[in-house]
Amino acid sequence: MEIMMEQAYVQSALGLMGWDLWGALPPEGRAFRGRASAHLAKLAHEQITGAEALRLRDQIKPRLEEDCFENEYERAGLRRFVKKVDEQTVLPIELQNELREVIQTGQMVWREALKRADFQMQLPYMERLFELEKRVAICKNPDQPVFETLTQEVDEGISVETIQRLFAQLQEGLAPLLRQVASRDEGVDESVLDFTAPKADMEAFARYVVERVGFDFSKGSMGEVLHPMCYGIGPKDVRITTNYAKGPIEAAMSLLHESGHGMYNYSSNEQALRYGLWGGVHGSMHESQSRYIENILGRSEAFWRFLYPQAQRRFDGLRGVSFERFYRAFSKVKIGVKRLEADELSYSLHPILRFEIEKAYFDGQLQVKDFEEVWNEKHRQLFGLTPKNAAEGILQDIHWTSGHIGYFHSYTLGNLIGGQILEAQLAQNPDFYAQVERGEFGEIIEYLKDNIWQYGQLYNAGQLVERVTGKELSAQPFLRYLTNKFAR
Amino acid sequence: MEIMMEQAYVQSALGLMGWDLWGALPPEGRAFRGRASAHLAKLAHEQITGAEALRLRDQIKPRLEEDCFENEYERAGLRRFVKKVDEQTVLPIELQNELREVIQTGQMVWREALKRADFQMQLPYMERLFELEKRVAICKNPDQPVFETLTQEVDEGISVETIQRLFAQLQEGLAPLLRQVASRDEGVDESVLDFTAPKADMEAFARYVVERVGFDFSKGSMGEVLHPMCYGIGPKDVRITTNYAKGPIEAAMSLLHESGHGMYNYSSNEQALRYGLWGGVHGSMHESQSRYIENILGRSEAFWRFLYPQAQRRFDGLRGVSFERFYRAFSKVKIGVKRLEADELSYSLHPILRFEIEKAYFDGQLQVKDFEEVWNEKHRQLFGLTPKNAAEGILQDIHWTSGHIGYFHSYTLGNLIGGQILEAQLAQNPDFYAQVERGEFGEIIEYLKDNIWQYGQLYNAGQLVERVTGKELSAQPFLRYLTNKFAR
Repeated sequence: MEIMMEQAYVQSALGLMGWDLWGALPPEGRAFRGRASAHLAKLAHEQITGAEALRLRDQIKPRLEEDCFENEYERAGLRRFVKKVDEQTVLPIELQNELREVIQTGQMVWREALKRADFQMQLPYMERLFELEKRVAICKNPDQPVFETLTQEVDEGISVETIQRLFAQLQEGLAPLLRQVASRDEGVDESVLDFTAPKADMEAFARYVVERVGFDFSKGSMGEVLHPMCYGIGPKDVRITTNYAKGPIEAAMSLLHESGHGMYNYSSNEQALRYGLWGGVHGSMHESQSRYIENILGRSEAFWRFLYPQAQRRFDGLRGVSFERFYRAFSKVKIGVKRLEADELSYSLHPILRFEIEKAYFDGQLQVKDFEEVWNEKHRQLFGLTPKNAAEGILQDIHWTSGHIGYFHSYTLGNLIGGQILEAQLAQNPDFYAQVERGEFGEIIEYLKDNIWQYGQLYNAGQLVERVTGKELSAQPFLRYLTNKFAR
Repeated sequence: MEIMMEQAYVQSALGLMGWDLWGALPPEGRAFRGRASAHLAKLAHEQITGAEALRLRDQIKPRLEEDCFENEYERAGLRRFVKKVDEQTVLPIELQNELREVIQTGQMVWREALKRADFQMQLPYMERLFELEKRVAICKNPDQPVFETLTQEVDEGISVETIQRLFAQLQEGLAPLLRQVASRDEGVDESVLDFTAPKADMEAFARYVVERVGFDFSKGSMGEVLHPMCYGIGPKDVRITTNYAKGPIEAAMSLLHESGHGMYNYSSNEQALRYGLWGGVHGSMHESQSRYIENILGRSEAFWRFLYPQAQRRFDGLRGVSFERFYRAFSKVKIGVKRLEADELSYSLHPILRFEIEKAYFDGQLQVKDFEEVWNEKHRQLFGLTPKNAAEGILQDIHWTSGHIGYFHSYTLGNLIGGQILEAQLAQNPDFYAQVERGEFGEIIEYLKDNIWQYGQLYNAGQLVERVTGKELSAQPFLRYLTNKFAR
């Protein structure tokens, strides 16, 4: 556990360096920063593949299933240790360095390729990355299909087959609902959302919203970046960010989304802290919490019944706009090409498109050079419209270029998990929406903390869902939630 | 050199962690951060005291004066390496840890003691720190008086005797000038400076001022903190900060001060970068550059002839205030108790007071418990007034509590060096003030870069002054500058 704690110290420094990259790091500081972070990564690698770590791994590994642990946290902490030693000893450091270099260069090229809407420019890096990720997966587990290894890296315990089954369920229920609502919402006037305000006022509003919901600023701080995100730097140290380009309402919603990640991240209990299991289960479980806080809670009618009068007092742009006009515009369903601009109803289909492309590639049915064409064709089938160029289509996300291959499915899976958690929470607390409308979030947040957040990484996503809901993963609760919200 | 580069990578991570401490780190993140940074420090310590480093040190040390180096940068870089190995091998890690812990706790207590103006509360930590610093100095150099070791840590090559001689010169010239100007300035109306503005406008103004003078935002970024400072995180990565509590003019001047540190920090030439000598000579040389940019340049009448019309356009608070009224208020000499609020003329005496107390302590003539009394008495002698409590007196600076003992003299020494550089620069560029008044700073900044900044840590402060001015350290040029500015 001492080794894992020291690994965490170095990871914390690397996390801070990563966070700083998007904030205060000046452009000419990047080269040195790249070398400095590679050095820290090397120090951590040397420790986790050193003689001491190997000796301990060999002692612990055969006994992981025995009844010799203080508690389940200790077992989980040591399992993590064994897994890390196993992975780091089979992954050649040269492969890791090559991967990091291709990602760093590829991301810079991506910015330019996006600007020019030029997929050909990005193609060599994307090909290289898919190839490198394949090699990484084979090193980690030569006995398992590559795509299975990659998705299970993100969502341990959830198979590709399960994901496919859930996505089929979801699509079946979603298609008619989406058609119906999108055509009905066509006439809704969105212009009422088209206003801005002095940045200090937007900041104060976003801060108020997340603090009111329950984000604790003694365990996290907020900042501004181009692309909103949440960084976990230490067990009680998260950084949530937003962006003010789309006005105060969307800025607050973005920060609320990140606060979901943030609260999950910093709420691990003492045992999870002690055994290095803090921060929450990444992948779909983490996405479920940010989307729960942003969408299920923060985009509900009850939430805005509570918040709207205050937003109106703060922002001149909302004067004279009735609650009904505001909330219809705010909740408008409108099919488009961008995942990040998608409404709550059509959103889930965007990651599915990407998941299917990844799967076809690793099944050997598709080459990277054909991604753009297949993307556009799939998009037409799913949404009835085609991106007019690569910037609107294949290049819109930085994920693949950042080496996040086999990740996209977790957004949609996170939505499904959120639907299941909502039904479980409503069963236990029928007063849920009434509390939201009164601005009382204490019981709602406590529920998430008690049932999910406190456990850190003790359970995986599948286990957690079963613990909370008593049921297996399913798309039906999320479909019921969407129908309930959007059909009326 | 590879070892030193790897030391620099870890130092850069520690620097970033230190910078973050004053910025985004949330309170509950501090404990983990403390352990994480102690771990990184330990990793660096293990490397620099490891077998490989010792072997290289033993090979290089006897040959440092030989003619076997590629150039002077290589020699200086290897001298730094030898010095670092020597120091780290004689300094027990327990002593370093104890020092760090006493500093961390002491700083927290200091905040409280300052609030309560209670020297007794701070006393045990201060006693402990003076004692620990003494032990550090004895470890580093048992053959030299402790105070000499501490001051030479800050200003290598400048002896305590030299400092005393220079301070005596300065005080002799300063006393009559200060009396004369302070009594004349008593009636000057400062209230014209007493205005504020929206923060975005203050930020934009401060940014404009430093960028106009020459600060390059591709090598540095700006932020806001309680106490303005400059952090060097990498060779081309500095962070300058300011604070907006005292309105836009002082916010811009603080940022300008830090930009002097910043430009010096990031302007090392290729050889200095290659041999790990970037960042500039700390102590009085660095202080001289920040004070040169803030005071000699930025508080000159010429500078405000250039800047004032723009400040007036930006800030309503200055409408209708004539240049003469503004500049007299801005340059008012007013004797007070606080170093950080002192005017340019009386400032230099504040560090001298602290230097004398330190010297008396290490000469064995004074105990820490008597510091407050001696401080107040010396203050009365120097300025004719007595601090009304410890918050106004002995507790006003965090330096001693932060382990910076033997540092204060460098502020005043920095002023003297600035005076010498000004005379040298004026001799070469008689158009200096005319350029400033036209807002042309290119030649002025190039001079500093060519003659001082580019060399990084190749020379020490004394050597650099001689190189630039052809003369030894002296208080006379600074006195001539002050007389010229304030007597009229």
